Amino acid sequence: MPEVGIIMGSQSDWATMREAAVILDELGVSYETKIVSAHRTPDRLWDYGKTAVARGLKVIIAGAGGAAHLPGMMASKTRVPVIGVPVQTKALSGVDSLYSILQMPKGFPVATMAIGAAGAANAGLMAAGILAVSDAALGERLDAWRAALSASIPEEPKDE
Amino acid sequence: MPEVGIIMGSQSDWATMREAAVILDELGVSYETKIVSAHRTPDRLWDYGKTAVARGLKVIIAGAGGAAHLPGMMASKTRVPVIGVPVQTKALSGVDSLYSILQMPKGFPVATMAIGAAGAANAGLMAAGILAVSDAALGERLDAWRAALSASIPEEPKDE
Amino acid sequence: MPEVGIIMGSQSDWATMREAAVILDELGVSYETKIVSAHRTPDRLWDYGKTAVARGLKVIIAGAGGAAHLPGMMASKTRVPVIGVPVQTKALSGVDSLYSILQMPKGFPVATMAIGAAGAANAGLMAAGILAVSDAALGERLDAWRAALSASIPEEPKDE
Amino acid sequence: MPEVGIIMGSQSDWATMREAAVILDELGVSYETKIVSAHRTPDRLWDYGKTAVARGLKVIIAGAGGAAHLPGMMASKTRVPVIGVPVQTKALSGVDSLYSILQMPKGFPVATMAIGAAGAANAGLMAAGILAVSDAALGERLDAWRAALSASIPEEPKDE
Amino acid sequence: MPEVGIIMGSQSDWATMREAAVILDELGVSYETKIVSAHRTPDRLWDYGKTAVARGLKVIIAGAGGAAHLPGMMASKTRVPVIGVPVQTKALSGVDSLYSILQMPKGFPVATMAIGAAGAANAGLMAAGILAVSDAALGERLDAWRAALSASIPEEPKDE
Amino acid sequence: MPEVGIIMGSQSDWATMREAAVILDELGVSYETKIVSAHRTPDRLWDYGKTAVARGLKVIIAGAGGAAHLPGMMASKTRVPVIGVPVQTKALSGVDSLYSILQMPKGFPVATMAIGAAGAANAGLMAAGILAVSDAALGERLDAWRAALSASIPEEPKDE
Amino acid sequence: MPEVGIIMGSQSDWATMREAAVILDELGVSYETKIVSAHRTPDRLWDYGKTAVARGLKVIIAGAGGAAHLPGMMASKTRVPVIGVPVQTKALSGVDSLYSILQMPKGFPVATMAIGAAGAANAGLMAAGILAVSDAALGERLDAWRAALSASIPEEPKDE
Amino acid sequence: MPEVGIIMGSQSDWATMREAAVILDELGVSYETKIVSAHRTPDRLWDYGKTAVARGLKVIIAGAGGAAHLPGMMASKTRVPVIGVPVQTKALSGVDSLYSILQMPKGFPVATMAIGAAGAANAGLMAAGILAVSDAALGERLDAWRAALSASIPEEPKDE
Repeated sequence: MPEVGIIMGSQSDWATMREAAVILDELGVSYETKIVSAHRTPDRLWDYGKTAVARGLKVIIAGAGGAAHLPGMMASKTRVPVIGVPVQTKALSGVDSLYSILQMPKGFPVATMAIGAAGAANAGLMAAGILAVSDAALGERLDAWRAALSASIPEEPKDE
Repeated sequence: MPEVGIIMGSQSDWATMREAAVILDELGVSYETKIVSAHRTPDRLWDYGKTAVARGLKVIIAGAGGAAHLPGMMASKTRVPVIGVPVQTKALSGVDSLYSILQMPKGFPVATMAIGAAGAANAGLMAAGILAVSDAALGERLDAWRAALSASIPEEPKDE
Repeated sequence: MPEVGIIMGSQSDWATMREAAVILDELGVSYETKIVSAHRTPDRLWDYGKTAVARGLKVIIAGAGGAAHLPGMMASKTRVPVIGVPVQTKALSGVDSLYSILQMPKGFPVATMAIGAAGAANAGLMAAGILAVSDAALGERLDAWRAALSASIPEEPKDE
Repeated sequence: MPEVGIIMGSQSDWATMREAAVILDELGVSYETKIVSAHRTPDRLWDYGKTAVARGLKVIIAGAGGAAHLPGMMASKTRVPVIGVPVQTKALSGVDSLYSILQMPKGFPVATMAIGAAGAANAGLMAAGILAVSDAALGERLDAWRAALSASIPEEPKDE
Repeated sequence: MPEVGIIMGSQSDWATMREAAVILDELGVSYETKIVSAHRTPDRLWDYGKTAVARGLKVIIAGAGGAAHLPGMMASKTRVPVIGVPVQTKALSGVDSLYSILQMPKGFPVATMAIGAAGAANAGLMAAGILAVSDAALGERLDAWRAALSASIPEEPKDE
Repeated sequence: MPEVGIIMGSQSDWATMREAAVILDELGVSYETKIVSAHRTPDRLWDYGKTAVARGLKVIIAGAGGAAHLPGMMASKTRVPVIGVPVQTKALSGVDSLYSILQMPKGFPVATMAIGAAGAANAGLMAAGILAVSDAALGERLDAWRAALSASIPEEPKDE
Repeated sequence: MPEVGIIMGSQSDWATMREAAVILDELGVSYETKIVSAHRTPDRLWDYGKTAVARGLKVIIAGAGGAAHLPGMMASKTRVPVIGVPVQTKALSGVDSLYSILQMPKGFPVATMAIGAAGAANAGLMAAGILAVSDAALGERLDAWRAALSASIPEEPKDE
Repeated sequence: MPEVGIIMGSQSDWATMREAAVILDELGVSYETKIVSAHRTPDRLWDYGKTAVARGLKVIIAGAGGAAHLPGMMASKTRVPVIGVPVQTKALSGVDSLYSILQMPKGFPVATMAIGAAGAANAGLMAAGILAVSDAALGERLDAWRAALSASIPEEPKDE
């Protein structure tokens, strides 16, 4: 059973959300990927949320754009931590996605990430950080990943 | 069976949403009022949406604030027209509510009204207008309501 | 006589508004299309609004951009439900269109849709939903359309 | 016949728009005040616009809030210069009023002023400036008004 | 001596501001064009403003982008009506230009137009409207221009 | 050793952040509270971050307003999951706090909550959800808390 | 001769700008305070800018609200560093002031501070920091001021 | 030892920040360039800030995008004046960068420049202006640079 579920509202979100999968691959965290549309497949959302604990999912990463109801509705259906990724949109640049994901009422938090691809990558890292709370080996891999990132930064900018 | 369902995410939304009820009273349209929280009572939302057509509801007015998922999720569960009212919020003044209600993906429209009390009143009028498509008597009452509003506008502004 | 009028402020709005026509074609709803500019052809707007009920129009879909006065002015001239579509604009991305359409005063609601093409498609669906209140056969076609959309969503995202 | 028409969408706008009247009084410019609601009294708007030139109106000042269609619709009905004043609103602070007034399409300009009372006062001054193009005596009074304002500015700020 | 001065903050604004010149050519209104940078050539601004009345300028059209101080500073130096055009900018899309031009304090109005090219064209039309207050022949040309625009709107949208 | 660290940029943030502490008390999760100003006490931030893992902290909740650097800088110093709470501000209503916390670059996620008190309460719930990944008893308490919240929602709105 | 000039667009800005004076008093930096309105007293602005270097001013702090042209116009008239403080406004909360001050074109920088009173205080500190580049004793006083601020931060938040 | 440090959060910021270097070259001001990431290389930031005074740095120019913590954190570590450049971002156009840099709390000012390349060039000019407070020869070079810019502005716009 995978530890992390990466879900998204539509196929078009995958271009953004794969960044989360890349990170989880790098850190050796198991995951599954699903399209779960809050509006087009609400029953799929319901089932996913209701069975998440029993299936052993430990973290859910949910990406969506526009009236992005998926992360918040998932948070309403399960106590498994939900990390939300606002996908950038055409007219409102993802501010619509952001507000729909972020502004949850008391009771149902969504751990909101930055808009777009950097946010999706960070969702993978946040999931790993959450799992590392009880997985010291993963914690060490995460520390190593972070150290490698830091070590990759050159001292001086270069003309390109 | 009432023709219109006025639903809202929490008790605190009633101060806004009662404006819709006032209008429906004035126009002689039957309605019910319910608290249906998308996040705190998602199963209530599910049941309300699934039974709406069978129960004879013809229009649903849904008000919510913040990550206002109620109108859009209701639109995903029933073909009954959903009118959404963005409730004004403290930090973001209802722009969060607005974007969460308005920016629905293709397939699941929400008829979005202005932010706050004027929007709630207009939700009542829009519901009446929809019912009047097949209820000529209501159409005449609506025309009379509109004519009375217009007739109430004085010619000149007054110091107050 | 068509049941739905699709009107727009200029020829350039048609690229967006045809999405509404596509949906109405799919659902077997009759419609007409007109250019009605609030500012350049205000008398055309007046006539359209004044005769809408008598001509048998049941729903009006109005798209416009910038200081998008067409939907709201039409709502002032007829009790026929008006669905507004904010067309995306160059400098303000359609937020100007949105506010001009959405923020109607008490008395004259416009059922506002999302900015751009998704909003236009949803305007078609909302029009169908309104007509379905008194047209059970259309209601069944709408349910089928929705079911087909939901059934088209794959389980898993694919690399493209 | 007054030279300037000060019109506004509702009685509640008068608290803002009276600032324009105060300025015109100070500068000795004749004016009339009317409530002309674009949505509630569209025919009044039509008549006002159609007769403006014939009645001898030289400038129209129009204030409105929210989906503020009055200034733009008036500009569509008459070539008399229209000065628009965005009235501050509750949820959107007048940005809705501003965009509805400002973003007019090519063909129908509205001379937009700042949001709120300062904008209304400036509408009076802009009207006077327009009239002064062909009224040298008014031009001199306007210069004197401006000189007096400048002369009233103290050199040093004072604790209050 | 030209009746209208079209000034702008930099050469790059000309792509926008030429729309004003096109309109004035169509309406037979004389004008001059100048680059007057509020920050780079403040003394040129000073001289232009101080001599405007004496030189016989009747209207000034000023376009600028970013911290667009040119229209407002010109309004501070002359009673000649100033029409401001917010030029679209890269990062803030002209909202910076708009606020810098629009939000003038009491005493110094700028007649603000829409952001970008439509606003520049409308500045030309507003200038003509102002001149037409005391030039009936121009008023008739302006009415004809408006009528031609209205007559050019087709009844039906066309696929392109 | 407490499992959760609640840190904030200044004493004035406590009015918001105490909502997180209230939730943790309700759920029986141990925590500490500290003022750690990113700008005024950067070395305190450094020490807190560097020792977090060793001290046994499992989750850090960080609230701040304005240029809210505390959550992101803490995320840069430790792999312990950081939950960020944007505190509402006077001029920009917390949008400044939000963007400073949310828009982290790839590598250093902050789990951002809603602006203000609801966000702080949700930070407590998110912290509990993270701990519940490896603490089944807490998971059950969290489920009970959520069920109690849902059960507290009345069916009908009441006049107040 | 004072080293710092604190100027502002109107008396009403003093409530904000006095925070700059308080800081300069605390740090023993000499200053003068003047009202210099870009629009109402443009010649005063001109004179102040042209004589700034000769009078020995080393830094200018300029606060203004709305179409806040004072800081940028001063930067155009003198090479003395100009620090700009956006004063909070009623309708747009100081975002108008901010954009008018910040978005200066290449050639004429304004060192922009946060909106409102914190920004004014920081303008005083920035002025001191600039002077400290060539005044080691002031640098030490500034370091002490900063150390005292840091030392004043308590370890734990207190209920109030 | 260079007088100015140009630092930036990542290699990708160099395309913007090189504009500052170009200006300093033109004015004959010595500088160094470094990549200092607040989040990826926080210890580098710490060291840079702590040694800035001792190394003889007189001004620091810091550019960053998104949750742009570099300028503010540097201002917290040294009394050397910090000039901040908000780098334009993909989703939020640099408004995120701007708010993160601008909205510093009392005690730690950042001299914020316009978003993007013009802001970077102006950062170079502001650095020169600060150094010119105690370097009259540089002041004269700066005056000459400004005069040359002003002299380069043509009188009339040209078609291109």
